[in-house]
Amino acid sequence: MIEPTYADVVAAAGRIEGHAHRTPVLTSRTANEELGAEIFFKAENLQRMGAFKFRGAFNALSKFTPEQKKAGVVAFSSGNHAQAIALSAKLMGIPATIIMPHDAPAAKIAATRGYGGNVVIYDRYKEDREQIGRDLAQKNGLTLIPPYDHPDVIAGQGTAAKELIEEAGQLDYFFAPLGGGGLLSGSALAIRALSPNCKVFGVEPEAGNDGQQSFRSGSIVHIDTPKTIADGAQTQHLGNYTFPIIRSDVNDVLTASDAELVEAMRFFASRMKMIVEPTGCLGFAAARAMKDQLRGKRVGVLISGGNVDIARFAELMSS
Amino acid sequence: MIEPTYADVVAAAGRIEGHAHRTPVLTSRTANEELGAEIFFKAENLQRMGAFKFRGAFNALSKFTPEQKKAGVVAFSSGNHAQAIALSAKLMGIPATIIMPHDAPAAKIAATRGYGGNVVIYDRYKEDREQIGRDLAQKNGLTLIPPYDHPDVIAGQGTAAKELIEEAGQLDYFFAPLGGGGLLSGSALAIRALSPNCKVFGVEPEAGNDGQQSFRSGSIVHIDTPKTIADGAQTQHLGNYTFPIIRSDVNDVLTASDAELVEAMRFFASRMKMIVEPTGCLGFAAARAMKDQLRGKRVGVLISGGNVDIARFAELMSS
Repeated sequence: MIEPTYADVVAAAGRIEGHAHRTPVLTSRTANEELGAEIFFKAENLQRMGAFKFRGAFNALSKFTPEQKKAGVVAFSSGNHAQAIALSAKLMGIPATIIMPHDAPAAKIAATRGYGGNVVIYDRYKEDREQIGRDLAQKNGLTLIPPYDHPDVIAGQGTAAKELIEEAGQLDYFFAPLGGGGLLSGSALAIRALSPNCKVFGVEPEAGNDGQQSFRSGSIVHIDTPKTIADGAQTQHLGNYTFPIIRSDVNDVLTASDAELVEAMRFFASRMKMIVEPTGCLGFAAARAMKDQLRGKRVGVLISGGNVDIARFAELMSS
Repeated sequence: MIEPTYADVVAAAGRIEGHAHRTPVLTSRTANEELGAEIFFKAENLQRMGAFKFRGAFNALSKFTPEQKKAGVVAFSSGNHAQAIALSAKLMGIPATIIMPHDAPAAKIAATRGYGGNVVIYDRYKEDREQIGRDLAQKNGLTLIPPYDHPDVIAGQGTAAKELIEEAGQLDYFFAPLGGGGLLSGSALAIRALSPNCKVFGVEPEAGNDGQQSFRSGSIVHIDTPKTIADGAQTQHLGNYTFPIIRSDVNDVLTASDAELVEAMRFFASRMKMIVEPTGCLGFAAARAMKDQLRGKRVGVLISGGNVDIARFAELMSS
């Protein structure tokens, strides 16, 4: 049996209830007209700390023993997982150490510190964050919660798609961003259980399609850190927990270019009045690109987050 | 008896159901901590066409006779009412003529045309839009739906506050933007009926406080068109329907400066991941300014709309 299962998503939903926002499912006449389909956007940019990552982090920390809680948690992250762990830890009174890349968006570093996290900076292109995390964990007795490759994280992330189906009903297609695969694998568990005929797609930045290569070749492909504006999907490889689920329950992995992401950001801002970070635009960008197949269908699009520096957002929208 | 009444708001809610979005009520830990209160944001920037105005327009057109529907509707508006009438008319197959000021945001003029409205431009500082509207109505047998001073418009606008109370429960304070008073008077009807102990405040741009002067003096004060970034609240006077309700059911009228509006826009963008137009920020800006009185209270804030040119938004956020 592949772990985790949909039962773990249901258990996670119980743990996060009253702590995570049940984010709205939004519709847009303009989007529906453009795609000739009925689109349901799950707006996780309106989640606490601005991204779905709060779900998995809160679920994982909820399962700590009293000893683990006392010693503390350590996490490495390009941004949103960092904030998610820092906020969840703060809510439960757990000390948190967060390992972040030197080029993470300033807003994400500041927010992580704002939630009380002890931030350790590393060089994304030279150092191995996983090694730094393991060393810190061992030295100080901390529990390492990785950003995606952990059953409790995956189960927590799956609660967003569960809520989406509960609210929108059965879907024909579903699109979610793909970085390390925590969100996509958790979503796939929920959708297979609740809307079994729905086609599930993960979407990566064009510059780093390791997930697509892995999905199509059947084994985990490693790549160098890709250079893309989708900073939440700059992961180098899928995980040992996420890959088997994706391979089993996902229909395909697609890609979107940075230019398509900027166009989707502009759409969300001008037509839906929402700030969506580049990574959060992956699902809608891919849906737009394959709109001929979506005509007349019911389509779920997961917007993963909205954490982009406002100055950077303004710059992208002015170009 | 003052018209309209809460019964008209209830009837309007029935007419718009399934046509208008039931917009989400959002909360923000950061906002709650800043004000030491529990804030419930009614996000009408996520309404169809990007503002609460769709509610009143749709309600008013729903009551047209077959003859009125065939001849068409005419409206004058600085922007959001124009789009609201154009979209509602399109949905019901009614021809729409919209009179818009020469300096209305390009996004609003384009969107109005996009909804199929026939746009007539006038000079905000030299011509009288009400006269132009009356002339067109008389010449072509059109029905004029004014932007705020009409019982069906007021009743429709009141449905947003009705939904807010239904979702958030009893409130201690409520803040809404004030232009001509359609939203504020409709909101006051709903709140008096559903949360009778709630203090209701209207908020105007500092540059044009005719509503505050009218409220405090007891008769409708006229002013020149104020110069403010809050283009949805540049009205010159309250209406014959809106003023008596405001006088009777509102606790006070407050003001906010353009600088405070920009700060609130920045808050909504960076912390709540939403695009809010300057006018839509009036309520939160005023709540922030009187936060000492709000400590420990349950506070409703109506965000009226999100229709701001993205280039203009980017410019304001870069300053």
